[in-house]
Amino acid sequence: MIKPQTLKGFRDFLPEESRKRQYVINTLKKVFELYGFEPLETPALEYEEILLGKYGEEGDKLLYRFEDLGKRKVALRYDQTVPLARVVAQYQDILPMPFKRYQIQPVWRAENTQKGRYREFVQCDIDTVGTSSPLSDAEIIATAVKGLEKLGFKNYKINFNSREVLFEKIRQAGVPENLVLTAIRIMDKIKKVGWEKINQELINSGISEKSANTLNELHSKTQPIEGKNMNEIWEICFKMGIKLNWDLTLARGLDYYTGLIFEIEIPEYQAGSICGGGRYDNLIGMFAYKQIPAVGCAFGFDRTIEAMDALNLFPAEMTTATVLVTVFSPELKNSSLKLSSQLRSNNIYTELYLDEKIKLDKQLKYADKKGIPYALIIGPDEVKNNSVTLKNLKEKSQRTISQNELLAQLLKSS
Amino acid sequence: MIKPQTLKGFRDFLPEESRKRQYVINTLKKVFELYGFEPLETPALEYEEILLGKYGEEGDKLLYRFEDLGKRKVALRYDQTVPLARVVAQYQDILPMPFKRYQIQPVWRAENTQKGRYREFVQCDIDTVGTSSPLSDAEIIATAVKGLEKLGFKNYKINFNSREVLFEKIRQAGVPENLVLTAIRIMDKIKKVGWEKINQELINSGISEKSANTLNELHSKTQPIEGKNMNEIWEICFKMGIKLNWDLTLARGLDYYTGLIFEIEIPEYQAGSICGGGRYDNLIGMFAYKQIPAVGCAFGFDRTIEAMDALNLFPAEMTTATVLVTVFSPELKNSSLKLSSQLRSNNIYTELYLDEKIKLDKQLKYADKKGIPYALIIGPDEVKNNSVTLKNLKEKSQRTISQNELLAQLLKSS
Repeated sequence: MIKPQTLKGFRDFLPEESRKRQYVINTLKKVFELYGFEPLETPALEYEEILLGKYGEEGDKLLYRFEDLGKRKVALRYDQTVPLARVVAQYQDILPMPFKRYQIQPVWRAENTQKGRYREFVQCDIDTVGTSSPLSDAEIIATAVKGLEKLGFKNYKINFNSREVLFEKIRQAGVPENLVLTAIRIMDKIKKVGWEKINQELINSGISEKSANTLNELHSKTQPIEGKNMNEIWEICFKMGIKLNWDLTLARGLDYYTGLIFEIEIPEYQAGSICGGGRYDNLIGMFAYKQIPAVGCAFGFDRTIEAMDALNLFPAEMTTATVLVTVFSPELKNSSLKLSSQLRSNNIYTELYLDEKIKLDKQLKYADKKGIPYALIIGPDEVKNNSVTLKNLKEKSQRTISQNELLAQLLKSS
Repeated sequence: MIKPQTLKGFRDFLPEESRKRQYVINTLKKVFELYGFEPLETPALEYEEILLGKYGEEGDKLLYRFEDLGKRKVALRYDQTVPLARVVAQYQDILPMPFKRYQIQPVWRAENTQKGRYREFVQCDIDTVGTSSPLSDAEIIATAVKGLEKLGFKNYKINFNSREVLFEKIRQAGVPENLVLTAIRIMDKIKKVGWEKINQELINSGISEKSANTLNELHSKTQPIEGKNMNEIWEICFKMGIKLNWDLTLARGLDYYTGLIFEIEIPEYQAGSICGGGRYDNLIGMFAYKQIPAVGCAFGFDRTIEAMDALNLFPAEMTTATVLVTVFSPELKNSSLKLSSQLRSNNIYTELYLDEKIKLDKQLKYADKKGIPYALIIGPDEVKNNSVTLKNLKEKSQRTISQNELLAQLLKSS
């Protein structure tokens, strides 16, 4: 006996969940394309050497690696940024620059599932490669925001910072070089514990009271003061109707980013930021052996769905079929067949009940179980009168109407 | 130096190719849903024992298998039918029956790439599980045909047969039991080599001339004569406007199918059938340890794209962006920014050139290289007159129009 089961950290998505995933992907894709991002797909398996050593020691441990039948050392896609770097190097002669691409594919990580993490999950990235213009930074943020808006999020907070500015400001506040990273780590917790505790911790760590006060002042500012494109990015976003919050404590992926860093939070959803990214000018060129500037962001796909569930942002009617056409009896099968063909050619999502020997009662229960809102019955009377009985399964009401009226009714509600 | 390269048999899909793939997937998905099929996703990795031994010896050799970090023996998805069987067993208490699902995911096979085969390719399946009604057989064919029609195929030929009928007829023709499989193998080549040669080969193999003649008569019939639901399937399809060709030589996957088998050919595309499937009543129940009837079909995804390329079925305009908004100079950046926001809020797929320091000439070349049909220029005159210059990059024409006129023009052509 082989037990039907999935591996730990891997998931099946039955229709109800899969429809939600497709809804999010389709919505985001449309926004990405509206902003001129183009689709890219890369293989699930790559040469191990392409991926290895790019994610730090922790990442390398989480890679799914094995030897294939041809004795090649291969690994499963761990993220979409290193494959993007490979693609940019491999096709540099034919890719138009700037190269704006989106990529929505699964990645695999041998994560500790105790933390509620998955070993297979979809990443959803947009990146602009080949320009360091602040327009491209702002456009990434604008595209992400439009994506969230199209998904139905009304409140969001965009925190941004600059890795360069962050280091500079901390140095300018008089924090000694050996305590810069310590200061960042302490300041990163300000939202959780408040200024009082942070102030104390900074001083305990050996930072002067004056320096700590300067850091607090900087942190309270809501607009970047100067330099490194941050003002420009803020302004361009502002012109597009997007308000950025300068957040000196935002420290996100410090060893990876080189300029802008940002995160988008949903106030009503506290499990963490739903989207984040930044500029990383040293990573994409690694296989081309030259510097190629890049900026991008990633949606937390599972978190997005979780937040949408929590805030009730999915459309009420997420069933595939709008209507189930029942089969009254084997003799009347053809009437049901004809009707479903008509409905489908009018683009009404139609399920025909597939077994004419099953009792009508059971067919209606099937529609109910699947959440299909309407069921149609064509019995001998209906056939005689060229009519049809329309059952509204939610309201538990029914009426017999002409087939023309039916079409109008269903087109209205689909 | 790490060379940027992909593994043999694995492919990157740059935007041009990826757009085609998405076009096919979106078109088929819509048709599948119109017919009431619902999406299902299963993990890329499964326990090896779930997949092993299900594909025959040849298949097992082609499985990507390895041991994960937890010492579990795992394998990459080889097809979508065995995972479907697992899902049906695992969730049998909550899945409504019949269960109609579509699944479009990559599979991996360590194929010999010399034959032009890929090691990673997308499968595109629809299956109806839990009913043996001929309505479900016919619906699978009807859905496949509608999919091909929506993709733009005008000519197609649907050959069908029954595994049961096939065996019966050959026996009834007087072919001795030990030569039944030989007869099928010989008859299978009739389209390639013609009746004369087949007749000779049948006789050479020890089959009597009378039996051979009976087989030829059977083969020439265009309608199934009797039994095993074949007539019913033919009739239901006929009522839906679909003509099936009875083809006694069609032998497709004999050890797997139990009833209907069919293949759809495109006469103008000779590389093989583009879609095929049938009824397999013994496979789906294997993890549930009971018989669960099922019928389904699969589109050859790569072949479909190849055939569409060959027949010019992809829409002429497959670029992501309809228009590139150029940036005349750093000072006029905001005008371009404003215009692109307006266009996007009118759902016009818009790319804003991201570097205001690049010369206009080079920006236009970029649009040309990407095949974007229109470019917009807002220089000092345009700003003064609240107008915009619209360049048609294919016709190499341009005119200066008001921003309102622009919107009307682009909405018409997008």
